[in-house]
Amino acid sequence: MQVNDVYQHDFKFTQEEVNRFAEVTGDNNPVHTNAEYAAKSQFRKPIMHGMLGASLFSKVFGTLFPGEGTIYLKQNLNFLKPMYVDVNYEAIFTVKEVLVDKNRAVVETIIRNPEGFVCTSGEATIMNVDKIKKPAV
Amino acid sequence: MQVNDVYQHDFKFTQEEVNRFAEVTGDNNPVHTNAEYAAKSQFRKPIMHGMLGASLFSKVFGTLFPGEGTIYLKQNLNFLKPMYVDVNYEAIFTVKEVLVDKNRAVVETIIRNPEGFVCTSGEATIMNVDKIKKPAV
Repeated sequence: MQVNDVYQHDFKFTQEEVNRFAEVTGDNNPVHTNAEYAAKSQFRKPIMHGMLGASLFSKVFGTLFPGEGTIYLKQNLNFLKPMYVDVNYEAIFTVKEVLVDKNRAVVETIIRNPEGFVCTSGEATIMNVDKIKKPAV
Repeated sequence: MQVNDVYQHDFKFTQEEVNRFAEVTGDNNPVHTNAEYAAKSQFRKPIMHGMLGASLFSKVFGTLFPGEGTIYLKQNLNFLKPMYVDVNYEAIFTVKEVLVDKNRAVVETIIRNPEGFVCTSGEATIMNVDKIKKPAV
């Protein structure tokens, strides 16, 4: 990982996946799972859990960028716009700072909707002793 | 919600629930789901996803305290200690600031393990037009 490295990961979730997330986390707020209830809300249709979007960040850090061995230390989240099921979102990761002595990196984390608006923004701090380290001399 | 209000919610997750969380989020880092792999890691046994613990905050805000109608605006997360399956954790919510004009509250969010150590700390900003408002005069 180098400062200014960018990684992009596209994703979407179905209503069935949102329902399963609600079930396993216990967060069964009907605005996520009940189309009739959501239709009467300001959102008009069921919205994804903000934390389901944020789980994408965890997935990418732990399995893709930088991948195996990553330890998640911090994550700030700003839920700026609702996210809906069956919509293609783009998660964009930009490395802001690399602390090789501590095997750590600070990474900007953003989710954009197809219109280009940021739905979730934030910053993560991660550690990976194998993948974030001083170059061998 | 008033400044200094405290709400407490106990929880635990089983290995099967952690596996389902991994499946639905795609975060299938083996440190969460593979006991053999985890045994060789610094954690010695499978750890919960940090975001699964954080989902508890979302559950409580959306369904219990203050409950229905809550909109999640911000959450900061510090993952300080690993959390394990089948362990009873305590999530503690302390209201730090109430902005009645904006129907918003700032709430400290903490997860403690049975030994009393903080595993996850952070701060949330939530909005609820029905439950966080100026008292009627």
